[in-house]
Amino acid sequence: METLTRLVRLFSKLPGLGPKSANRIVYHLLKCDKTYIEALSKGLEDLIVNIKECSVCGNYTDCDPCSLCSDPSRQKDIICVVEEPKDIQAIEGTGEYTGVYHVLMGVISPINGIGPSDLRIPQLLNRIGKSKIQEIILATNPTVEGDTTALYLLDKLKSFHVRVSRLALGLPMGGDLEYADRLTLARAFSGRQEIN
Amino acid sequence: METLTRLVRLFSKLPGLGPKSANRIVYHLLKCDKTYIEALSKGLEDLIVNIKECSVCGNYTDCDPCSLCSDPSRQKDIICVVEEPKDIQAIEGTGEYTGVYHVLMGVISPINGIGPSDLRIPQLLNRIGKSKIQEIILATNPTVEGDTTALYLLDKLKSFHVRVSRLALGLPMGGDLEYADRLTLARAFSGRQEIN
Repeated sequence: METLTRLVRLFSKLPGLGPKSANRIVYHLLKCDKTYIEALSKGLEDLIVNIKECSVCGNYTDCDPCSLCSDPSRQKDIICVVEEPKDIQAIEGTGEYTGVYHVLMGVISPINGIGPSDLRIPQLLNRIGKSKIQEIILATNPTVEGDTTALYLLDKLKSFHVRVSRLALGLPMGGDLEYADRLTLARAFSGRQEIN
Repeated sequence: METLTRLVRLFSKLPGLGPKSANRIVYHLLKCDKTYIEALSKGLEDLIVNIKECSVCGNYTDCDPCSLCSDPSRQKDIICVVEEPKDIQAIEGTGEYTGVYHVLMGVISPINGIGPSDLRIPQLLNRIGKSKIQEIILATNPTVEGDTTALYLLDKLKSFHVRVSRLALGLPMGGDLEYADRLTLARAFSGRQEIN
């Protein structure tokens, strides 16, 4: 049973799964087609080998720069600043936004010992300094940490004389971008307000 | 994004997971230690390579015969017949049972086209014929299919002159009379036991 218990233990560490659901998954796999298990195993390996951070925006990607940064149809003078790569996916799901992104890879969170220098903020400032940017949309989560980060960025961006906006508070407070429904997220985009 | 979307799609096929939870898992993995992802990938490969059915009881195992069948402390003359290998795990969890097992790998289910010949029933009869068995416990699920399978086995086992039993049906421990379904309550009545 070594192989099974080891795999159950590994699966139970994934978010949303516990020992019971991990057990159910592993016993399900034993009845699955071998090609499916092989694909899953290979997919995990690929995750290590293929996925890197885009050198421009910081999004997870197979190729550098990522498909969004290298897409000629995207507006390069509007940058949407998000906390995590998964937020990009949520925003792309709305189909409302045609600019590019910048991933901070976290938020300012003193309680977790994360300061501005731990985030991709220097890369953002460098990016804004190098090319002509029309607008920066601060799309951090509407949480204490997200708001703090947005305020910090607002202060830093003052010297660049660029329009800075924040997503409209159509989003429920304390919520998470990733789990917002498309319509709410789309409304938040179209209702964004200038804050400088 | 090819690698990510492919992996999300694979994960979303697992029981209890949908596109959103699969997405969450994959983005979680991207923040995980590489060794953990490698272990998960390797564990899945091991599942294909290492796991086989025990030639005696049919349980999933790394070595043949399995640890239960080769354990000298287990009573070899009591066989508990279960539908699936995961049922063995549930029964072992009770710590009540010291005999050995036999996995049918399914139940008789005409609606799914599964007849007695598709199950490990010949192996069971062969096993009972070869060695001296004291008791057979039919621990199939208390469902229509499970009951049908138990009745079929009861008929087949008549010629062996062996004691055959079925798991007791009644109220679950910690349950509430008020919320028990009619069938369970009816079974609890008909199966009531004298306590003086």
